[in-house]
Amino acid sequence: MTQNAIAGFKASLGVERARDDLFTRELYSSDDTPEARLPALVLFPHSHEEVQAIVRLAGRHHLPLTARGAGSGNVGGALPVEGGAVISFECMTEVLEYAPQEHLIRVQSGCITAEIDRIARADGLSYPPDPGSSPYCRIGGNLAMNAGGPHAVKYGVTRDYVLALRAVTGRGETLETGVRTSKGVVGYDLTRLLVGSEGTLALITEATLRLAPRPAARALLRAAFAQSKDACAAVSRVMQQTILPSAVEFMDPQALAAVRGMGAASSLPQATQALVMVEVDGELEDLPRQLEIMAAALTGDGLLQLERGQDAATIAALWTARKSLSPATKAMAPLKINEDVVVPVPRLCDLLTEIEDIAGSERLRVVSFGHAGNGNLHVNFLVDPADGDEMQRARRGLDRLFGKVLALGGTLSGEHGIGSVKRSFVARELDPVSLHLQREIKALFDPLGILNPGKLFPEV
Amino acid sequence: MTQNAIAGFKASLGVERARDDLFTRELYSSDDTPEARLPALVLFPHSHEEVQAIVRLAGRHHLPLTARGAGSGNVGGALPVEGGAVISFECMTEVLEYAPQEHLIRVQSGCITAEIDRIARADGLSYPPDPGSSPYCRIGGNLAMNAGGPHAVKYGVTRDYVLALRAVTGRGETLETGVRTSKGVVGYDLTRLLVGSEGTLALITEATLRLAPRPAARALLRAAFAQSKDACAAVSRVMQQTILPSAVEFMDPQALAAVRGMGAASSLPQATQALVMVEVDGELEDLPRQLEIMAAALTGDGLLQLERGQDAATIAALWTARKSLSPATKAMAPLKINEDVVVPVPRLCDLLTEIEDIAGSERLRVVSFGHAGNGNLHVNFLVDPADGDEMQRARRGLDRLFGKVLALGGTLSGEHGIGSVKRSFVARELDPVSLHLQREIKALFDPLGILNPGKLFPEV
Repeated sequence: MTQNAIAGFKASLGVERARDDLFTRELYSSDDTPEARLPALVLFPHSHEEVQAIVRLAGRHHLPLTARGAGSGNVGGALPVEGGAVISFECMTEVLEYAPQEHLIRVQSGCITAEIDRIARADGLSYPPDPGSSPYCRIGGNLAMNAGGPHAVKYGVTRDYVLALRAVTGRGETLETGVRTSKGVVGYDLTRLLVGSEGTLALITEATLRLAPRPAARALLRAAFAQSKDACAAVSRVMQQTILPSAVEFMDPQALAAVRGMGAASSLPQATQALVMVEVDGELEDLPRQLEIMAAALTGDGLLQLERGQDAATIAALWTARKSLSPATKAMAPLKINEDVVVPVPRLCDLLTEIEDIAGSERLRVVSFGHAGNGNLHVNFLVDPADGDEMQRARRGLDRLFGKVLALGGTLSGEHGIGSVKRSFVARELDPVSLHLQREIKALFDPLGILNPGKLFPEV
Repeated sequence: MTQNAIAGFKASLGVERARDDLFTRELYSSDDTPEARLPALVLFPHSHEEVQAIVRLAGRHHLPLTARGAGSGNVGGALPVEGGAVISFECMTEVLEYAPQEHLIRVQSGCITAEIDRIARADGLSYPPDPGSSPYCRIGGNLAMNAGGPHAVKYGVTRDYVLALRAVTGRGETLETGVRTSKGVVGYDLTRLLVGSEGTLALITEATLRLAPRPAARALLRAAFAQSKDACAAVSRVMQQTILPSAVEFMDPQALAAVRGMGAASSLPQATQALVMVEVDGELEDLPRQLEIMAAALTGDGLLQLERGQDAATIAALWTARKSLSPATKAMAPLKINEDVVVPVPRLCDLLTEIEDIAGSERLRVVSFGHAGNGNLHVNFLVDPADGDEMQRARRGLDRLFGKVLALGGTLSGEHGIGSVKRSFVARELDPVSLHLQREIKALFDPLGILNPGKLFPEV
């Protein structure tokens, strides 16, 4: 980046909010992906207008701009371009409007996701999408990646809660999309075109989000099974009921071994090889019957133990094993290759069999768990990047995994996105016609190619 | 259209399914809009491949192609171009795949909407979007217009139930979008870009739809109010509860007068000037408490009568007034200008006041009713096209209506779409940046401009 360009940004935002010191640049050189690229500049706008000024300046200098929320993404979506600029939205945290009577909140895109839900709670409302990073991730990142979470099985994903967006396209123009009402069909759905576009079409500065009535109460079932296939069959039965559970989480034998190593599975029968957590929510009066329905659905071959939680303390205790998983797996190897595949729910068992087979034949440690009610599995390859042979086996394993997922009618990512990490696999899922159209749409919104280059699309 | 072109289509589809006789052309010259334009040709493809062949042939001859489901739309979305071709999807009614364990059905786009729901019912599932035309409209039309319906207030609209699409772009290419799983974030959301695009980007040939658990039971409340503003306040209270009703319908004084004229309001107190219907659904055991919550919410100023229905016969009787509305208003005047505006729910009363004022000052008969839980009002101007002065007053009235709707933070269409009828108003809602991008997207998908020209966009 030229000194001239840097001076331009400093003049526009002030030196405090256009930083080119090495400390700041290093701090923003990576997201939650094990890779780093040093940006030349880190920008902290306060307003839509400042974002627009940045995009226009970047356009003039043909500078790559990578948008960043909290940097909690794990596919390298917020990984800067070496020598480019990072635009961090963490100073844009204003709640612009809160209208509980309309079930609506309008926020700047740097708002923390859980904070939005916290505000809504005061009026018996909720913002349902709840990625694991909710307490610190920012809504702009959720919008960019169309984030999901455990409650997606009943409540849907980020896309389902966006009414309207304000954004700056790669051309530096202000784009307003959508409506503030719960219905609206005027024009093409540019709102949902931006959601999930990973910062490649426009920079979202403001979002109008739909809020939902907050369930009064929750209850939990934890079912321990002898084998993964028993657990998968139980998940299928759970998803056949006339009511939807609010979460259906799964842990495979390796995931259980990991948390056993942390001492977080002491209350489970020794023979447990798979765990299913089923949460229900609603009015307090409805919970006993919902629990009954789900308990009946969970009951079947291989069920070793079925625990119920209706009070906060018991519920928290039952979640222990599942919540210990992330730290447990991080401690197990220098590198965790974290995949996020989805298959139709009745195909989960086939997928797990293949994963076991991959782990066996390629001698890999693979830990699988996730949002089973959506068929969304986090498949973690635990490897040592210094071990060249193991890394090669992991690559072969990934290749087989993706092949199987697609053969089973699935998709390569349920909620993490493509970013830079998975771009080489995209062409296995999307055909050339679709990819070509998407590239052309990208060129319309961002003709100079300055917005998050090197993401989402396969390399050409 | 040249004889050469017509011969080409006949050779491709056979003379039985490429019709240029006057009888057929007249039959397909209009949809549910009071206007007609004579196409030169009506085509009846059976398959995706035939649709593709048609688009390619149309491209070679630069012929306008207007897609048509059942022709039940009321904004002229399926109105042909004079001398162009209509492509009717009514022979493409195959159910390609039904996978109740996956909550999924894949159909050709000519399938009748209610038929999809009927199939799902056998397995305790439902296809929730239910436009008034469900018994005869076709899913392709619903997809093109992003159709809604009374149950949208709890279950959402067509867009929310589309997992994947197969389509032919204006370039004659096969485009596959989306996934068959409940989650998926690979690439831009072309699925939802096509939904609501009114046949201007691509012709949808197949749709993979998400099914939802079918509520076991329904119950109904009918609340009679002394004034519209009392009813609006009650609707606002209903929408503030911790549970969502499955439908919230409203009728204004003119709508009540219309059904009174049909003898369909005999069970209502004489003084009734506004009616609110609130439906709840769920497990049978939950209904009494839901009814109690909603009854309490409906209770307030101006409530004259509150009737409950829990059995099929009583529920049907309570719906009588609302269901008689469409025939009643059709009988009232030679022409019904049917608007479909949306405002935030707390603004409904302001909108109704403005409508009353418009009716008074412009001496117009205006009947309003609709999906109040979404703030979605059908505003019907009952006029005589032969009365030039009345038509001019109606135009002024519409102009004021749209101005007010936008000033209240609303949108010009909640579920009917733009078609040819409302295109001159689109630029009042969408700004030039958005419209320009949408036109460019249109040009990408359909560079020759053969797909449904003269729809959705304002005239240039």
